[in-house]
Amino acid sequence: MPVGTQGTVKSLCPAQVRDCGAQIILSNTYHLNLRPGSELVARMGGLHSFMGWNGPILTDSGGFQVFSLAKLRKMDDAGIRFRSHIDGSEVYLDPAKVMEIQNNLGSDIAMVLDECPPWPAERPVVENAVRRSLKWAGESLDAADKLGIQQSGRHVFGIVQGSAFADLRRECAQALAGLSFNGYAIGGVSVGEPEEQMLEAVDASVPYLPDNLPRYVMGVGTPPQLLRMVARGVDMFDCVMPTREARHGVFYTVLGRRNIKNARFAEDRGPLCPESANYACEHFSRAYIRHLFQSSEILACTLLSLHNVNFFVSLMDQARLHIERGDFGPWSEAWIARYERGQ
Amino acid sequence: MPVGTQGTVKSLCPAQVRDCGAQIILSNTYHLNLRPGSELVARMGGLHSFMGWNGPILTDSGGFQVFSLAKLRKMDDAGIRFRSHIDGSEVYLDPAKVMEIQNNLGSDIAMVLDECPPWPAERPVVENAVRRSLKWAGESLDAADKLGIQQSGRHVFGIVQGSAFADLRRECAQALAGLSFNGYAIGGVSVGEPEEQMLEAVDASVPYLPDNLPRYVMGVGTPPQLLRMVARGVDMFDCVMPTREARHGVFYTVLGRRNIKNARFAEDRGPLCPESANYACEHFSRAYIRHLFQSSEILACTLLSLHNVNFFVSLMDQARLHIERGDFGPWSEAWIARYERGQ
Repeated sequence: MPVGTQGTVKSLCPAQVRDCGAQIILSNTYHLNLRPGSELVARMGGLHSFMGWNGPILTDSGGFQVFSLAKLRKMDDAGIRFRSHIDGSEVYLDPAKVMEIQNNLGSDIAMVLDECPPWPAERPVVENAVRRSLKWAGESLDAADKLGIQQSGRHVFGIVQGSAFADLRRECAQALAGLSFNGYAIGGVSVGEPEEQMLEAVDASVPYLPDNLPRYVMGVGTPPQLLRMVARGVDMFDCVMPTREARHGVFYTVLGRRNIKNARFAEDRGPLCPESANYACEHFSRAYIRHLFQSSEILACTLLSLHNVNFFVSLMDQARLHIERGDFGPWSEAWIARYERGQ
Repeated sequence: MPVGTQGTVKSLCPAQVRDCGAQIILSNTYHLNLRPGSELVARMGGLHSFMGWNGPILTDSGGFQVFSLAKLRKMDDAGIRFRSHIDGSEVYLDPAKVMEIQNNLGSDIAMVLDECPPWPAERPVVENAVRRSLKWAGESLDAADKLGIQQSGRHVFGIVQGSAFADLRRECAQALAGLSFNGYAIGGVSVGEPEEQMLEAVDASVPYLPDNLPRYVMGVGTPPQLLRMVARGVDMFDCVMPTREARHGVFYTVLGRRNIKNARFAEDRGPLCPESANYACEHFSRAYIRHLFQSSEILACTLLSLHNVNFFVSLMDQARLHIERGDFGPWSEAWIARYERGQ
């Protein structure tokens, strides 16, 4: 899922997001609740209509942003009180409120409020976060029930926490699996830990989640990380990487990531990635996009974002194809080896 | 003509520029010569190929930018020496060099180097600028001839100077009309003078320019100004207004210009302009675009630019239609009256 934090996948219009091959996007409850406000979005007909996106939308719970962006946070078992990073106004979120906001937005997939401990975290801190996240998971389902979210065909996903403690991950996953969620996310990864620990957290959670429901690792990752998680049975991802990195000049190729600022691209007539098929690669050279970037032109961000989103989505398309063919393992290993070797 | 200063119409990709209805764009010799350099563009196959625009391109001579942007300018009858506003490097332009740069870019319409006096300017300053501009006009044609520009079906336009002095405008226009240009521009307008003086400069020039060749007023204007100049026999315009104003939140409607930042648009479900047909107006509300602008999202610039360019191009389409129908005068007066009345 490309990320549309503020109700737009940065620098792309919805038609371009669609052309990238994206089927579903993620948007942020925290940001949209602060600005323009979920009630306003509801009055405008919901987020799909407001932002002109006619595919599914998953919204996160906002919990992660409260921890990373908000000020003067005060949290207890009931909820979280904090100040907006935009205007300092006081905001209160609890599991029911978070469901209400996502209901206002009209999300197709709503995420429960959870507590995401920082990394590294001591065991007692993580134990408490898991306990609280499980309490909130149940309260979220109750709130969703009152709002008729699942009854109307929309979905609610639970989130596994547990940091680097395999037994806490398992315990959390097992408890959530007993609740009537439509899918399960693994949260609290990509918070600064080494990749090995990230994969261990996934390994500790996946076996205890239902086989027949989607599994979603939140906020990851690099192309090799995505493939390594697909190999572990993960079905969904979201990441700002393709669009955020684009704004710093980074683009992805089958031979690794590159930066368009590099002087060697000044007269490079080739496309960003010779194996990609998208508007940026079909119409523009690296030399032109480098010129745009050096000249601080917005179109540089648009073309790099468009390519990067397409690159990630296409990678998942290929993974799906190779799973169906039954050769995902060897294909994936070869893909990663070439990407990391860079030639 | 939408303006693509640095080889891109700001915040729009070529497909969007085309969707706006634009048939031709303007790009800037001064900027492209400094970065990435016209020789590089030539090696990349010319500006059309470099920027992915398959319609005609007019390039200005760069003279106007030398006067408005460059530092340490030193000018005589031979040419202009100045320092780049980007890196301070010394650059020299003369009529032949300016033609060579535009030939490198592959411009469909190349403009001659001219001297554009500031406003207001004393008569002797303007007399000298006209004399020098005429000298350079001849040298430009000689240079174009050596490069085979007109022989290969590309065009060279002369530029009338003369500031607010009607007799100097006439003298300049008459002298240029005797040379083998493919079209004629009126320069030195929209440099700070009142609209009345701008129209007087046009009135003083147009009657002395050939009837059967395009007349082009450079760097204007507001929608009413464009219509008033069309009424005077002008065929072509370029202006950064639609895209520059977009970046400040301004959008155009048949009832006047508006700013999307205005709080009254916060819950406005209507399109930017109810009488426009473009991607921005067909898919997004003022409320959404205001949210994007308030959130500093790039898509705000893209959608406002797309609408504004389409608004200006459509206005010219309508003007053309009413000229053909024979009712341009009354239609134009009614259009301006409604736009200025704002209801």
